[in-house]
Amino acid sequence: MTTDPDQSKHKTVVPHPAGISRDERWCLRGQRGGTIWLTGLSGTGKSTIAAALEATLIREGLDAVWLDGDNLRMALCADLGFSEANRHENVRRIGEVARLFASSGTVVIASVISPFRADRERTRQAHQSDGIPFVEVLVEAPIEILRQRDPKGLYRRSLAGELRGLTGVDAPYERPLRAEIDLRTDLCGVSDAVARLRSVAWGLARPDSAVNQTDELARGGRP
Amino acid sequence: MTTDPDQSKHKTVVPHPAGISRDERWCLRGQRGGTIWLTGLSGTGKSTIAAALEATLIREGLDAVWLDGDNLRMALCADLGFSEANRHENVRRIGEVARLFASSGTVVIASVISPFRADRERTRQAHQSDGIPFVEVLVEAPIEILRQRDPKGLYRRSLAGELRGLTGVDAPYERPLRAEIDLRTDLCGVSDAVARLRSVAWGLARPDSAVNQTDELARGGRP
Repeated sequence: MTTDPDQSKHKTVVPHPAGISRDERWCLRGQRGGTIWLTGLSGTGKSTIAAALEATLIREGLDAVWLDGDNLRMALCADLGFSEANRHENVRRIGEVARLFASSGTVVIASVISPFRADRERTRQAHQSDGIPFVEVLVEAPIEILRQRDPKGLYRRSLAGELRGLTGVDAPYERPLRAEIDLRTDLCGVSDAVARLRSVAWGLARPDSAVNQTDELARGGRP
Repeated sequence: MTTDPDQSKHKTVVPHPAGISRDERWCLRGQRGGTIWLTGLSGTGKSTIAAALEATLIREGLDAVWLDGDNLRMALCADLGFSEANRHENVRRIGEVARLFASSGTVVIASVISPFRADRERTRQAHQSDGIPFVEVLVEAPIEILRQRDPKGLYRRSLAGELRGLTGVDAPYERPLRAEIDLRTDLCGVSDAVARLRSVAWGLARPDSAVNQTDELARGGRP
């Protein structure tokens, strides 16, 4: 007999089936969903690329949404700090929201430092086991470049001893072992990065679209 | 000088502006976003109505998404139980996700018991202060009817002493003071409820649409 409400969850939560299948939903919406997940250190350009990509896709007629780590820390994840446990939970929540959007037929562009490999893998698995594509994009540049850019002043403050736990400096960043795409933002500009990911997004959303096929050919056909 | 990472959040989180305004996004997507929030006791029919409404809207060409309290408790809110603090947090998170979807131009149908008035009001405020419409719908039926329906067996288990903290029985439910719509599901069927909310959804998404105007006239012109 369970009397503690917190212990009886598995008996009180009964999932309710949808009134429409995902296939029908994606078909009627005219596009498929999927998540493009940008991971990397602060200052690599994740948010800049993601914001520009979202705008580009929407103006081209795709339904896309940008989920940004910093922006969500002021809303959905406002209760979380930067302890390791909180960083795990931050990525878990953003991954779940990404899955909800992608499941509904939206192309998600997530820009989240997401320093731990296991968290990103869990997000990938949650997508793939739900039949939703997940594309991991490593956004990187040499640390010297990041220190020069330092758009938020974090590297300066870290160097001055005013900030502890900066990812890649005195907090771990686990580089992806099998990211689908590696963007070196010291070697390519924002527009190049957006062009590369734009093609990926169209490939997720409308696998048979002319836009996608043209871009595939231009890239040498790698899916 | 702040050295504890958890205390330095306000100095490390820097929001990044979007590359496209909401107006342009909504215009290009051909619809506006908004949230229809169904609150009420277990067994009133919230999920049944919401699932049918979502399917109806998508088949009519609107982009809609259903966020269900029980379904999300198995994913985004899987870490939460049913303590009062956890119930607050559950509603807060679903409200934030609703706002993200609505902001992107999707009509959200949320079905969540959401027993506390303050939580629903906070969700309403978060939407409205962000320029996003929020429509609160009270879904209700007399408790005797709910005990008869009892689709999850919760009322039976509560009566047998096997379950504590059932909303409306031995846990509080604060009835809305100013819900825009009151659906008495002992008096109207699912299709009637869906028809009523369908008109609301079209009114949110495409205020000038013929569908909406026709329904407005049929209803006597009440917005």
